[in-house]
Amino acid sequence: MPRHDGRSVSQLRPLKVKRKYTKNAPGSVLIQAGTTTVLCTASVESSVPPWLKGSEKGWVTAEYNMLPGSTPTRKARKVDGRTTEIQRLIGRSLRAVVDLEALGEQMITVDCDVLDADGGTRTASITGAFIALVDAVSTIELPDPKRSVFKDSLAAISVGIVNGSPVLDLDYVEDFAATVDMNVVMTGSGKFIEIQGTGEEATFSEDELSKLLKLAKGGIMELTEMQQKALGRKWPLVS
Amino acid sequence: MPRHDGRSVSQLRPLKVKRKYTKNAPGSVLIQAGTTTVLCTASVESSVPPWLKGSEKGWVTAEYNMLPGSTPTRKARKVDGRTTEIQRLIGRSLRAVVDLEALGEQMITVDCDVLDADGGTRTASITGAFIALVDAVSTIELPDPKRSVFKDSLAAISVGIVNGSPVLDLDYVEDFAATVDMNVVMTGSGKFIEIQGTGEEATFSEDELSKLLKLAKGGIMELTEMQQKALGRKWPLVS
Amino acid sequence: MPRHDGRSVSQLRPLKVKRKYTKNAPGSVLIQAGTTTVLCTASVESSVPPWLKGSEKGWVTAEYNMLPGSTPTRKARKVDGRTTEIQRLIGRSLRAVVDLEALGEQMITVDCDVLDADGGTRTASITGAFIALVDAVSTIELPDPKRSVFKDSLAAISVGIVNGSPVLDLDYVEDFAATVDMNVVMTGSGKFIEIQGTGEEATFSEDELSKLLKLAKGGIMELTEMQQKALGRKWPLVS
Amino acid sequence: MPRHDGRSVSQLRPLKVKRKYTKNAPGSVLIQAGTTTVLCTASVESSVPPWLKGSEKGWVTAEYNMLPGSTPTRKARKVDGRTTEIQRLIGRSLRAVVDLEALGEQMITVDCDVLDADGGTRTASITGAFIALVDAVSTIELPDPKRSVFKDSLAAISVGIVNGSPVLDLDYVEDFAATVDMNVVMTGSGKFIEIQGTGEEATFSEDELSKLLKLAKGGIMELTEMQQKALGRKWPLVS
Amino acid sequence: MPRHDGRSVSQLRPLKVKRKYTKNAPGSVLIQAGTTTVLCTASVESSVPPWLKGSEKGWVTAEYNMLPGSTPTRKARKVDGRTTEIQRLIGRSLRAVVDLEALGEQMITVDCDVLDADGGTRTASITGAFIALVDAVSTIELPDPKRSVFKDSLAAISVGIVNGSPVLDLDYVEDFAATVDMNVVMTGSGKFIEIQGTGEEATFSEDELSKLLKLAKGGIMELTEMQQKALGRKWPLVS
Amino acid sequence: MPRHDGRSVSQLRPLKVKRKYTKNAPGSVLIQAGTTTVLCTASVESSVPPWLKGSEKGWVTAEYNMLPGSTPTRKARKVDGRTTEIQRLIGRSLRAVVDLEALGEQMITVDCDVLDADGGTRTASITGAFIALVDAVSTIELPDPKRSVFKDSLAAISVGIVNGSPVLDLDYVEDFAATVDMNVVMTGSGKFIEIQGTGEEATFSEDELSKLLKLAKGGIMELTEMQQKALGRKWPLVS
Repeated sequence: MPRHDGRSVSQLRPLKVKRKYTKNAPGSVLIQAGTTTVLCTASVESSVPPWLKGSEKGWVTAEYNMLPGSTPTRKARKVDGRTTEIQRLIGRSLRAVVDLEALGEQMITVDCDVLDADGGTRTASITGAFIALVDAVSTIELPDPKRSVFKDSLAAISVGIVNGSPVLDLDYVEDFAATVDMNVVMTGSGKFIEIQGTGEEATFSEDELSKLLKLAKGGIMELTEMQQKALGRKWPLVS
Repeated sequence: MPRHDGRSVSQLRPLKVKRKYTKNAPGSVLIQAGTTTVLCTASVESSVPPWLKGSEKGWVTAEYNMLPGSTPTRKARKVDGRTTEIQRLIGRSLRAVVDLEALGEQMITVDCDVLDADGGTRTASITGAFIALVDAVSTIELPDPKRSVFKDSLAAISVGIVNGSPVLDLDYVEDFAATVDMNVVMTGSGKFIEIQGTGEEATFSEDELSKLLKLAKGGIMELTEMQQKALGRKWPLVS
Repeated sequence: MPRHDGRSVSQLRPLKVKRKYTKNAPGSVLIQAGTTTVLCTASVESSVPPWLKGSEKGWVTAEYNMLPGSTPTRKARKVDGRTTEIQRLIGRSLRAVVDLEALGEQMITVDCDVLDADGGTRTASITGAFIALVDAVSTIELPDPKRSVFKDSLAAISVGIVNGSPVLDLDYVEDFAATVDMNVVMTGSGKFIEIQGTGEEATFSEDELSKLLKLAKGGIMELTEMQQKALGRKWPLVS
Repeated sequence: MPRHDGRSVSQLRPLKVKRKYTKNAPGSVLIQAGTTTVLCTASVESSVPPWLKGSEKGWVTAEYNMLPGSTPTRKARKVDGRTTEIQRLIGRSLRAVVDLEALGEQMITVDCDVLDADGGTRTASITGAFIALVDAVSTIELPDPKRSVFKDSLAAISVGIVNGSPVLDLDYVEDFAATVDMNVVMTGSGKFIEIQGTGEEATFSEDELSKLLKLAKGGIMELTEMQQKALGRKWPLVS
Repeated sequence: MPRHDGRSVSQLRPLKVKRKYTKNAPGSVLIQAGTTTVLCTASVESSVPPWLKGSEKGWVTAEYNMLPGSTPTRKARKVDGRTTEIQRLIGRSLRAVVDLEALGEQMITVDCDVLDADGGTRTASITGAFIALVDAVSTIELPDPKRSVFKDSLAAISVGIVNGSPVLDLDYVEDFAATVDMNVVMTGSGKFIEIQGTGEEATFSEDELSKLLKLAKGGIMELTEMQQKALGRKWPLVS
Repeated sequence: MPRHDGRSVSQLRPLKVKRKYTKNAPGSVLIQAGTTTVLCTASVESSVPPWLKGSEKGWVTAEYNMLPGSTPTRKARKVDGRTTEIQRLIGRSLRAVVDLEALGEQMITVDCDVLDADGGTRTASITGAFIALVDAVSTIELPDPKRSVFKDSLAAISVGIVNGSPVLDLDYVEDFAATVDMNVVMTGSGKFIEIQGTGEEATFSEDELSKLLKLAKGGIMELTEMQQKALGRKWPLVS
């Protein structure tokens, strides 16, 4: 059974990444997956949260927001439960690949503002946020310039069960129809950072779980290649 | 390597459930897993959220809260990101086993208030909330008394990797030390409803994931038996 | 004219007190007056409010909250005018019997969370809070261990005029019907700390006031005996 | 022992009342007790709170606020616990003398804004609010013009124990020094509506209570005469 | 075409100013322009905003508020967009004539509370706030008593186009009917500080702008004379 | 004296406009003036604010927001006084050229989100918002398709006095240095809609005002041509 936009079950949507999209933020990435468009900016502050004062460790955090015009029906500006959940996920995921001691006592906030939404905004945010973070880190002074800030790279993708079939990278129409929805965050070297799988008023079996995770892994590998290509010489990892 | 409290890796903490713990709420369950103590009350309202008005479908939602005295250091009363994330999880999980049409146009809110916290408060909340929900449903009038409101039963447990070993039902000390933390919500018939696995500034492999899910499944089966025993004749499912 | 539950006009509801009800808080008391059930936990913090910094004086404060499931109709979580009024009353009452200098520069917060509500929740909170406060104080280090923190003991009860008769310890049904509602906070030695008497769209005479205060005094004496019994060797006062 | 401003223990501060102080509000009274100055305006709305819709009963409510410049040190604009407590007291007191059915289904809000504060702002507010309420009621259409809206008149005064002596109508200096502080709301016919007595880190005996109430009663009688004089032909009560 | 209240197009409403209107605030001015009545109090604090700490410069800020009873229909207490806009305007205007270094490191807040509103409340606030500010400054210690805090005086007035004609000092009826509404803040020496002109669902030409500014200038000159007369020997400027 | 970026005093920054920048919103315009970049989206809702229900008139409103990464130092997400002031200005300006009756009973909200900020964000927002509004209006059904919704076109620009000289279209560096800052909103036919001129701790003369307005007028004419070119056949006005 073909997908409504003609993709195969394991096919990503057309992907575009534009670095240095805006000028004021030290890291600024526009990432597009099909219609879904997210602006990820990374800003640096010299002060860290209170509980890290004097620790010589840094911090990485994230905020996520959908612009009112990003959805067909205007979305009121407010921070709801979904929003806080997603920004906690993005921050936690980024910290999983960052050596906070190597960063020194400074804080980087990655803001993911969705300009156009068509499903998969949180995973596009994570994938773009990693690139913006690398760019921002490249502009700051580190305690030990030889110590790498990044332990691994990081990307994220959604998978789900639509019309009974596991598929990769759901757009809004598929997301709405899915009985199981799963977001997977993985490192470039193939380790899990986060799995969030939810039956939408439905359940799923171990076998379905296996198929979904396999699809996700394939998608993450493609996204990692794209990230490496976009960053070029700035790619922070020894391959 | 033994666990700090002497349990085996696949052993649950001592579990107690007390139904009708308070008198005013139609469903009221005190659930204890070791020191962790949660009061789950289920209240019924005749009006549903606006988007369901006139739909002849009901709604189930949840709120989660830790009392200030539930932790060794007093916890200020406020709804933070973690709180909203957990209450969304509880509500979504409950709805996965409820036939909202069978409920008719009425709303049930399950409040999970943590009286004493020692790890695993969100999973104890879900396991207790199911029992409180069954009790509350038994007090209300349904559109079709022959149609079952419940499609399955529901329980939840945490698993994690502590000192390199996968273990079941982490208490606070283990939770703090864990490199991977996973909450699993399953039906009594062994289907997944929700998997939330997080590497805490760490990652995990597919093999570790498999071991964790196996431990979780065993725990859920024990919890389901306990729920069935607690509810006795009110157990809503044909075994 | 008999009361709806068969009590005499000067009879308290059945009273139960359980110390060390939860494990994490240094003071933890479950107090029940009939159906009304309040969990009072006392937590200690080493820092005091700004205006006491450096004063070598401590502080005692209180918070009051009704759990959503504590009432027959679910009560939404929010801090309304009634809530702040009651928590100010509890804190003020506790401070009236505490020697804040003897406490040293530390703060104790007593949280009174109503698990089941059937009238008299604020007075049960005060009576239980005193016991939790004594327990918490017994766990902390004091500047001068020989100086008593407590100048007196403290209990509270409601009285009111129902069907024209002054009665003691109103439950919800009586509270609703009462034309005059009065809460009295007294020390164990029989002094007033607080009197709050309100005509509910009604007024009352000096004679009625006298009768109400006499009933209250009798109730407070019984409550004081119960507190002394519950605390046993921890009773902080020379009798 | 004489009072710091030369008054006898039972003497009120100089009192001024000015009706129609502002033009837009249907009731507008400036009341001054010594330096304490409160502007009481009464506004009428045709809609009542939701729970009274269709009941053919009206509602009277109050708001209380201290202007930032009313105190020697600027008071930030915010609604704190003390504020909500006072506005609940004012509203409750006014409703005790109003026949809400005679008012018909309309709502009157009395706003008490303190322009200058020197103790006794809540009692001056109540005394002034009654006059503003009478003026506002005289401008509206009633369901039955022959039925009186007012069951009685209403005034309030503070008493307290200062330097060991019971005194009437405390100013700020006395209020600060008082060990017992009591606000009494009474009808013109000498019935209690509200008694709020508080030991400020102190207690008080039954004998002291009696003396305080006697002082209050004398003060209320003087205030009632002043109100009657101020309202002249508008005094709503048959004497 | 005559104005509805008989004034000529360039005529101000009757103006009254009363200094030392309340006792607690160091500056306290009641200003009335026709029915519009504003209480302007100026309070002094020894601490400045964070960004001025250690700068040896002071700060002047303002708050604006309409009392609920100031309008024919009760105005709910809340800080809306219009309110913040006006208080920013008042603060900015006052700072334009104050030498913040001459003030030394202290802060003055001018609170403008509207007691009765009939159009022109923001301009009356500015005109009155200047007088209250002068009074407050005269009570404080300055770093260099010979250096003047005031560079100029300050007043404000509204102008607008009503029924096609430019007019001065609009009351509410005219404000409501105006197609163009302009507030002008000027110094006593005839320089602009602020011009805010708005077409209300309408536009205006350069010629109309010229006429409006001329009217405003005339009004400001009259207001400046009144301020000078009110302040008498305290007038801070060499004429 | 040349400007720091080499422009003449009457020269606009390089201007770019991109229509249909995002896909979900019916109007979506990216406008760039030098580095300043604003995304203006216009969304349509079928319901109007309460006070227009049943009036057969529509409503146009605006929201303004700076993304956290739009400034060199990260700007926290919050709605402050400046933000509300600007969004009120944008909404008021748009309504000045819209025939709300021709729109019928529907509401359009234009969201102006600043992606990159370098001075002049509010005026760029207005200029871009007009284009987005025209695009959104072209997608909706109107009560009378022959009646034009637009009475005129609309653009805005800043002028100011920098180093003693009046200049057009200030960037951030100039804005910071300016002693007078003025925003001018005009119609395409050369009428004023709004003038907001502010002396920044400074004042300005009538002569300076004239020069500033002349510069603004020239800028607005250029912007109007650019808008007409961008909209092409959609330009809603008969020239």
